[in-house]
Amino acid sequence: MKFLFIGDVVGSPGRKMLKEYLPKLQKKYKPAITIINGENAAGGRGITDKIYKEFIQAGAHVVTMGNHTWDQKEIFEFIGEAKSLIRPANFPEGTPGNGSILMKVNHLEIAVINLQGRTFLPAIDCPFRKADELVEKYKKITPYIFVDFHAEATSEKEAMGWYLDGKVTAVVGTHTHVQTADNRILPNGTAYVTDVGMTGPYDGILGMQREAVIKRFLTSLPVRFEVMSGRAQLSGICITVDKKSGLAVNTERILINEDKPFFD
Amino acid sequence: MKFLFIGDVVGSPGRKMLKEYLPKLQKKYKPAITIINGENAAGGRGITDKIYKEFIQAGAHVVTMGNHTWDQKEIFEFIGEAKSLIRPANFPEGTPGNGSILMKVNHLEIAVINLQGRTFLPAIDCPFRKADELVEKYKKITPYIFVDFHAEATSEKEAMGWYLDGKVTAVVGTHTHVQTADNRILPNGTAYVTDVGMTGPYDGILGMQREAVIKRFLTSLPVRFEVMSGRAQLSGICITVDKKSGLAVNTERILINEDKPFFD
Amino acid sequence: MKFLFIGDVVGSPGRKMLKEYLPKLQKKYKPAITIINGENAAGGRGITDKIYKEFIQAGAHVVTMGNHTWDQKEIFEFIGEAKSLIRPANFPEGTPGNGSILMKVNHLEIAVINLQGRTFLPAIDCPFRKADELVEKYKKITPYIFVDFHAEATSEKEAMGWYLDGKVTAVVGTHTHVQTADNRILPNGTAYVTDVGMTGPYDGILGMQREAVIKRFLTSLPVRFEVMSGRAQLSGICITVDKKSGLAVNTERILINEDKPFFD
Amino acid sequence: MKFLFIGDVVGSPGRKMLKEYLPKLQKKYKPAITIINGENAAGGRGITDKIYKEFIQAGAHVVTMGNHTWDQKEIFEFIGEAKSLIRPANFPEGTPGNGSILMKVNHLEIAVINLQGRTFLPAIDCPFRKADELVEKYKKITPYIFVDFHAEATSEKEAMGWYLDGKVTAVVGTHTHVQTADNRILPNGTAYVTDVGMTGPYDGILGMQREAVIKRFLTSLPVRFEVMSGRAQLSGICITVDKKSGLAVNTERILINEDKPFFD
Ligand SMILES: [Fe+2]
Ligand SMILES: [Fe+2]
Ligand SMILES: [Fe+2]
Ligand SMILES: [Fe+2]
Ligand SMILES: [Fe+2]
Ligand SMILES: [Fe+2]
Ligand SMILES: [Fe+2]
Ligand SMILES: [Fe+2]
Repeated sequence: MKFLFIGDVVGSPGRKMLKEYLPKLQKKYKPAITIINGENAAGGRGITDKIYKEFIQAGAHVVTMGNHTWDQKEIFEFIGEAKSLIRPANFPEGTPGNGSILMKVNHLEIAVINLQGRTFLPAIDCPFRKADELVEKYKKITPYIFVDFHAEATSEKEAMGWYLDGKVTAVVGTHTHVQTADNRILPNGTAYVTDVGMTGPYDGILGMQREAVIKRFLTSLPVRFEVMSGRAQLSGICITVDKKSGLAVNTERILINEDKPFFD
Repeated sequence: MKFLFIGDVVGSPGRKMLKEYLPKLQKKYKPAITIINGENAAGGRGITDKIYKEFIQAGAHVVTMGNHTWDQKEIFEFIGEAKSLIRPANFPEGTPGNGSILMKVNHLEIAVINLQGRTFLPAIDCPFRKADELVEKYKKITPYIFVDFHAEATSEKEAMGWYLDGKVTAVVGTHTHVQTADNRILPNGTAYVTDVGMTGPYDGILGMQREAVIKRFLTSLPVRFEVMSGRAQLSGICITVDKKSGLAVNTERILINEDKPFFD
Repeated sequence: MKFLFIGDVVGSPGRKMLKEYLPKLQKKYKPAITIINGENAAGGRGITDKIYKEFIQAGAHVVTMGNHTWDQKEIFEFIGEAKSLIRPANFPEGTPGNGSILMKVNHLEIAVINLQGRTFLPAIDCPFRKADELVEKYKKITPYIFVDFHAEATSEKEAMGWYLDGKVTAVVGTHTHVQTADNRILPNGTAYVTDVGMTGPYDGILGMQREAVIKRFLTSLPVRFEVMSGRAQLSGICITVDKKSGLAVNTERILINEDKPFFD
Repeated sequence: MKFLFIGDVVGSPGRKMLKEYLPKLQKKYKPAITIINGENAAGGRGITDKIYKEFIQAGAHVVTMGNHTWDQKEIFEFIGEAKSLIRPANFPEGTPGNGSILMKVNHLEIAVINLQGRTFLPAIDCPFRKADELVEKYKKITPYIFVDFHAEATSEKEAMGWYLDGKVTAVVGTHTHVQTADNRILPNGTAYVTDVGMTGPYDGILGMQREAVIKRFLTSLPVRFEVMSGRAQLSGICITVDKKSGLAVNTERILINEDKPFFD
C-alpha cells in the first residue's frame, strides 16, 4: 500500500505540473491516499477556494498548509467548509480550521496531521506536545498516521522524525522548498525525509523571481516577490506502507524536471 | 577533471568515515582537488591543529569552516600557520585567518572561497559583495573557482548559486547537515547544490545525541550536546569540470551509509 | 499600601547595591511586599542557593527569574526547596520549579506571577494565555496580583500591560536592563512600566564588561562576558496600591546611581 | 547651546503633537538645531514628501529615518531631492539617499548621522565601522556630531554609546518607541540615552491600535496595524552642548502627555 505526498505547490507553474503529472503518478503508484501541500498555491501565497477544489478534483484526498496559510484573505471564509484542508495543528487555540483529519479512503482510515516548527518561525504552540496529543488520539483508531511537518530548521525536523519514530507511518518535511536526499526508514519503522521540496518553477529562488530575491539580499530594499515563469518541477515522495502494522517499508523520492524527466 | 568536496565532518565518527572512504573516493574519482568542511571536526565544535593536519595528511588540499570556526580556543593559535585552512571570507575585517586561497595542485591553480550566510545567522559582512570582490580577484588568475557557502536558509543559498552562475565553477552549500537532492548545473555552467550534508553519525540529530536535542525542543532547558556514537555516514559531491572553461559539466552526489553502501 | 520591586540584580556589584539600599528603601516606602528579580545575581548568570537565601534574609518576599533561570547548574537541586523563588510560568510543562506564588505577608495574600516573552526569545508557551489562566486562579483568592513580565520587545510588553489592565495590580517589565520612563497607571487601574532596569554596574553594557561586548559586535568572535566592576546603580519601582480594589494608584520609579543619588 | 531631538513621530496623532508643541519647545530651549525622527510619520509606515516638507516648515533642520524608511513607495522619488532627510548610513552601498549630513545652522556646522542596529533587525553593514568612518570624516570639520542610532537591542545601543564616548556630541537611540530613563553624560562627554521614545498615540501599542497587536500575539493570525486614535504624547531630548569642545554638558528628557503636561 502506498501513500503519495506532493510538496509545496507554488503558483500556476506548480499547479500546471500537478495537472500534468499527478495522473501519471497515480497511475504509476496507485496510492491509497494522495496528499498535497498547498500553502503557496495561489501566486506563491496561500490558497483560494477555487484552487483547493481543483486539487480535490485532481485527486488529492487531503491538502496541507503551513506558514502561508492565511495569505489569501478568502481563506477565512472557506476554511470552515473545506473539509479536506488542514493547517498546522499547533496554531494557537481559537485559530480557524483544523490541524488534522481522519480520512476514509478505499475502506481505510488514514490520519493526516499538519504541524509547524518554531525555530526561525513564529512562536506558536509546541509541535512535539501537539504531536503527542494527536498521535495518542488517532492511534486508538488507526495504525496509519501521516505527518507533514512544515519547518525551517533541519534540527527540529530530524528531532520530530526521531521523536515519532515507530509511532506514525511517516514524518515528511515541507517548507524549505528544496528536496533533501535523506529519505529513509528510521529504525522503528517511520518513513522520514527532511524536506520533499516544492512543485513549481525550476529556475526561480524557492519558486520566486530571482532578480527580486537577489536584490533583497544585496540591498535590504523592499521588493515584490512574484512567482517565476518558465520551466517547472514537481517534488514529492511515495511511501510504501505495511498494511498490518501501518509502518513504512520503503520511501521513494519523486523529482521531475527537465534534467530529471519522469519515467513510468 | 574532477573536484571532490566532503561536507561538515562531525566528531570522531565523521573522521573515521573520512579515513575509511576518502582513499576509496580518491581512487574512484581521481579528483584534481579535495576540499573538506571541518567546522565540526573536533567533538562537533570547531577544529584542532591535530585534526587539521590529519585532514591534510589524509589528502585534503583545503579545509573550509563556518559558524563553528572559533569553537576550539586553540584555533586562534594555529590559524595563522594553517596555510590550507580557510574560514568564511565575509567575517569582519580584522578577523584572524583567511577567507579564500589559491591552491596550486597538479599544475593547476584553483581558488577556493568560503562564505557564510546571514539569514538566521550572526550579522557579518555581505556574502554577495564579498563574493563579487573575490571572484573578480581570482578570475584574473584562474577559471577554477570553488565556493563553499555555509548558510542556513535555502533562499540565501539558491540566491548565491544564481548570483554566481557562470562566474565560478561551483557553489556548494554546507551547514544544515542534510544533503539536498537539487544538485544541478545552472544554465551558465556553475555546479550548484543547496547542501552536501554532513559526514558523521547516521543516527543522531545533525550528528548530535538525540535525547539532548529533543529535550531541548521539549523544555528549552539547557542541555549538553555531544556527538552521537554508532553508525556513521559520509556526504559529499564530485564535480566534473571542463578544463578549458573552468565551468562544470556534471555533478554527482556522494552519500555513504548502511542503507546506501559505497560502490567503486 | 506599597509594593516594592527591584530589577535584575547583576553580580556582586548588584548585590552590594541591594545590601546597601534595600534597608533604606524599605524604611522610606514601608512596602507590604518586596520582590527582586534575581536572574543575573550569580556572576551575571542565574542564581545560587546562597544568593537566594541572602535575598530572603535581606528582606525579599519573592525572587523572580527569567531567561537566565538555568544558568547555574545547582538551580536544579535547590529550586524545589526554594519556596519563594519563581521562574517564568509559561516555561513548558514539566519544567522544574513554580511560575507563580501566593504569598501571605502582613496579613495579606499577594499573588506574584513571573512570565517570559517570546519575541526575540526562545519559543515557550504563550505568556498571554498563561496569564489568563493564572489571573483567573488568583482572582478568586485575592485582588493583589503582581506580574513580572520578563521580555525583550517593547511591543510584547505593552501588549501584556494593556491585556491585563484592570485585572492585576501591576505589570512590571524586566530583561532589557535599561529603565524606561513610561511608568503609568493604565486607564483601568493597572500599574505599568516597560522595564524597571537593572541593579548592578553603572558603567558596563547591561552590567557586563564593555570591551568584550564591543568586541563581539565588531568581530562576531567569541568573548567571555564578565560582570563589570566599579560604580553601581539600583533600579526599581514602588507601586502604591488601593487596599480595597487591589488596583494601583501611583507608580514611582527608583533609580539610584552616582548621578542620581538616593534621598530618603 | 542646545540640540533638540524628537523621537519617532507616528501618524497624524504624532504630527499633531509636533505641530502643537514644537513651537513651544523651540521657544523654551532655543535649540541651535532641531532633529526629528520621521520613520513612522505617514500612517505609521515611512514618510511622504508632503510630511517631510511639513517637518522642515515646522522647524526641523534634519529628519532621520530607520527600518521603516522604504515603507512609502514615493520615498524612492523624492529622497534624492530631500536634502535634509537622512536614512541609516549603514544601509548597503547603492541604497538611495544619504546616511549623514553636515548642516549649516546659525553659523555652525553640525553633522548628523543616522545608523541602524543589526540585532533582531535585518543584516546590513556594520554600524560601528560605519560610525568610525563617518566620525573620522566629520571630526575634521566640526566638533558637533549628533548620532541617531535606530536599534532594537539595549546591548547594541549601550555598546554604541560607549564606543563613541568622547568622539561625538550625542548618541541618541530610537526605534523601540518607549522612552528610557537612562539619559546621562558618559565619562568622556558624550550624551547618551537608549531610546527617546515616540511621538504619537498615548494609548496604543507602540502607537498602533491595541486590538490588532494583541490579536497578533494571541493567534499569530495576520492583522492590519493602524495608528491608534485618541490621546497623544511627545517624546524627545534636549542636549546642552559645550560650544568649545562640542561635548555634552547636560541632557533633559522631554515627555509630554496628559499625565505629564508641558511646562514652559
Ligand atoms: Fe512553502
Ligand atoms: Fe512555508
Ligand atoms: Fe556544520
Ligand atoms: Fe555550521
Ligand atoms: Fe536580566
Ligand atoms: Fe533576561
Ligand atoms: Fe519607529
Ligand atoms: Fe524603527
